[in-house]
Amino acid sequence: MAVELKDLTKVEENYSKWYNDLVVKAGLAENSAVRGCMVIKPYGYAIWEKMQHVLDGMFKQTGHENAYFPLFIPKSFFSREAHHVEGFAKECAVVTHYRLKNDPDGKGVVVDPDAKLEEELIVRPTSETIIWNTYKNWITSYRDLPILCNQWANVVRWEMRTRLFLRTAEFLWQEGHTAHATREEAEAEAMKMINVYKTFVEEWMALPVIVGHKSPNERFAGAEDTLTIEALMQDGKALQSGTSHFLGQNFAKAFDVTYTTREGKQEYVWATSWGVSTRLMGALIMAHSDNNGLVLPPRLAPIQVAMVPIYKGAEQLAVMTEKMEAIAADLRARGISVKVDTRDNVRSGFKFAEYELKGVPVRLALGPRDLENGTIELARRDTLTKETVPQQGLTDRIAALLDEIQQNIYKKALDFRASMITRVDTWDEFIETLNEKGGFISAHWDGTVETEVAIKEATKATIRCIPLDAEEEEGRCIFTGKPSHRRVLFARSY
Amino acid sequence: MAVELKDLTKVEENYSKWYNDLVVKAGLAENSAVRGCMVIKPYGYAIWEKMQHVLDGMFKQTGHENAYFPLFIPKSFFSREAHHVEGFAKECAVVTHYRLKNDPDGKGVVVDPDAKLEEELIVRPTSETIIWNTYKNWITSYRDLPILCNQWANVVRWEMRTRLFLRTAEFLWQEGHTAHATREEAEAEAMKMINVYKTFVEEWMALPVIVGHKSPNERFAGAEDTLTIEALMQDGKALQSGTSHFLGQNFAKAFDVTYTTREGKQEYVWATSWGVSTRLMGALIMAHSDNNGLVLPPRLAPIQVAMVPIYKGAEQLAVMTEKMEAIAADLRARGISVKVDTRDNVRSGFKFAEYELKGVPVRLALGPRDLENGTIELARRDTLTKETVPQQGLTDRIAALLDEIQQNIYKKALDFRASMITRVDTWDEFIETLNEKGGFISAHWDGTVETEVAIKEATKATIRCIPLDAEEEEGRCIFTGKPSHRRVLFARSY
Repeated sequence: MAVELKDLTKVEENYSKWYNDLVVKAGLAENSAVRGCMVIKPYGYAIWEKMQHVLDGMFKQTGHENAYFPLFIPKSFFSREAHHVEGFAKECAVVTHYRLKNDPDGKGVVVDPDAKLEEELIVRPTSETIIWNTYKNWITSYRDLPILCNQWANVVRWEMRTRLFLRTAEFLWQEGHTAHATREEAEAEAMKMINVYKTFVEEWMALPVIVGHKSPNERFAGAEDTLTIEALMQDGKALQSGTSHFLGQNFAKAFDVTYTTREGKQEYVWATSWGVSTRLMGALIMAHSDNNGLVLPPRLAPIQVAMVPIYKGAEQLAVMTEKMEAIAADLRARGISVKVDTRDNVRSGFKFAEYELKGVPVRLALGPRDLENGTIELARRDTLTKETVPQQGLTDRIAALLDEIQQNIYKKALDFRASMITRVDTWDEFIETLNEKGGFISAHWDGTVETEVAIKEATKATIRCIPLDAEEEEGRCIFTGKPSHRRVLFARSY
Repeated sequence: MAVELKDLTKVEENYSKWYNDLVVKAGLAENSAVRGCMVIKPYGYAIWEKMQHVLDGMFKQTGHENAYFPLFIPKSFFSREAHHVEGFAKECAVVTHYRLKNDPDGKGVVVDPDAKLEEELIVRPTSETIIWNTYKNWITSYRDLPILCNQWANVVRWEMRTRLFLRTAEFLWQEGHTAHATREEAEAEAMKMINVYKTFVEEWMALPVIVGHKSPNERFAGAEDTLTIEALMQDGKALQSGTSHFLGQNFAKAFDVTYTTREGKQEYVWATSWGVSTRLMGALIMAHSDNNGLVLPPRLAPIQVAMVPIYKGAEQLAVMTEKMEAIAADLRARGISVKVDTRDNVRSGFKFAEYELKGVPVRLALGPRDLENGTIELARRDTLTKETVPQQGLTDRIAALLDEIQQNIYKKALDFRASMITRVDTWDEFIETLNEKGGFISAHWDGTVETEVAIKEATKATIRCIPLDAEEEEGRCIFTGKPSHRRVLFARSY
């Protein structure tokens, strides 16, 4: 698979095309023959696997167990929760038949009209309905609570305009679904999980996020409260990276799920759900990458160190390879993932460009002079700097450097975000900031859905969240001038 | 969730009902509201996760990478490979529409007739077609080969009669799909992977299998050769536990996938595919369990040691718990998974029965006398024996015991299978053995599909495989009397 770096669109030319080029050329994903569905290629999937592994550990650490629920949901289940059906049942894949037969005209196969389902099945866009229909049979008494389940699964939402990782008809995700005896416990669970997501995105993806409540208009369909983590991309647009919902008793009521309390009363069960998806891949790519390609945080990079020999002829290659394998063995013993690239059909410059494109955090190059001097060339992907260092102590140096790169990428993203949160107090400033600068805009809002919708229609900006740490402050809504008690964050978003 | 062991059907009464009861009562899986689709419950999923983890490691060890391909396959893709469409496109879930709308009569939602797909999409029953359509774009030259991809995914086959884990409309599996430059390399890959499966099933599931070729009639639809591992269940029926297919150039030709050889010629690419599924859960359950419930091999048991306090009153419980937690800490430090069961609302006898039902390999009970004597009661699930042992040296003893149990379960299954392979040379013996004893029947067959089909229609027995280690031996087909050069294995099967 030839990498053609020169064809990578520049960030400043066309951000959207740069992103798509990068996803494809770095071998992360590509469009498939099925409209809106992507193929996640091995290099992209390796990153997603690392994300899954870390998140799964965090879920188990907080007491959750994995389970698996059906792909299909009977159509009627969606009608039970009024808001949910509005939000999810509309644009979806509908299974209507269960058999094909040979085309009587001899042209392949056709749907067998005799094999029509009595009730259509929806390919799950999210699983609250099928799961709460199941929980009904699992819950009798307070002793059966809480239920703390998570599912890793594929889901389908029939999006009209799709973009690799960011918005696809099918995507991979996890969805946690928990059942509790009290409102307080469910609210605490929803908060706990949004904080798990924050920790993951900040410490592993090196991407700072703002935690807050969604405004009523942006809530999950069927939730009483939606908590969100909002990240900022390099083009100044926000990206919702994970959500955690307090569902109240809405689904328990829709599916008649009650429990007997310690005192012998019947009560409806309280619920949460929370999820992150392969969309995180999009966030990871857009947050850190540059005109040379991906910049991966070391903690999620499938290859942390790439080693390239500089040589002339097969004999020198053999010598370099032997030395590099010895160094690689030391690094691997330290838990560092290393690729020694001994291909003899591409130039070393090509390899350098390829590992830059693929976002490998550290590149080592070893040539004849290094061999003489006991040195090696070390290049950092994040800063694109290189230096010649002694081979002695290299493992310690690289272990420390990987940590440093992780911190540096995070700090860069944090500094950028800090520079991109603008406080505005007038509508003119709001419009100007949105159009000239982008980023998050911290402004007063009168708290009504009408205003929120009017602002969105006028500017395409939405309320990304009401930050958890928003301080009380008297002010006036930038749109209506009505009184407001705290600032919220607006942005254009993915 | 109350466990009602007394309601577990006895093996000897009704094997099929015993199996189903066990799956449900041990909390492994249950039927869902969607016909043929199961819910895999946390305890069942924890076992599947362990299987996945081990298999995934083995795939990576043998050079494979994970990727992800679309859930949906355009209908026309199936028509490209003639045998494949016969085998897979018939009983399947067909997506015909992509939108619902509010029912004009106000009763929930209905399919929107305006949102009909131009071409129907099939929910993947297996992914050869969509993957080879993708590989077409990945392969140009011999340098792009081999491609060694695996996918963990859900698939759907519209089975009419379903059984939890053994045969469900939706199931979870992995499917490896590899592309090679030569026939020899692809054949070697297919053989390598069936041996990976054999190692996994024998060493982790403690279940001996016979490796062999499928007869032409039992081959995968689209394969030139299917390798299989066949296991024997306690009721004398065989269970196909994993398959690995040499696909020749069939899919490469169907999707026009060629490569340029080192010499500059265009050749079609050679293929394999191989898979195991949640069906392995069914094999695991049926192979080892008994009237008291599951018997799990220690290497796959989510809980390897259950600890139950024997006490009177809260004060004693606190004392026992403290001691047990100290013992548990030692065991955990050794990598052993332990559950300390301090529930005070059920009797210890109930807990004993529950851990037997759940197949926990080792149970420890600690009472006041043990505390005085420095002893503990140790019970083995596989033999249902118990003894009182010193607390001193307990960790070493248990680590060794878990290995011993793993071996013992395997040996028991191996001895059983050895007793259930019967060599027969006449049709009368064949019928009698099949009806009176069951198990594998080693017999001569004339090698024709007609005979194979006739035997199946007469007896419901099929050729499970032509064992790899079958010796050349002259004989006569038990059905037709025609000459045969080696014995094959027949059995009734799941």
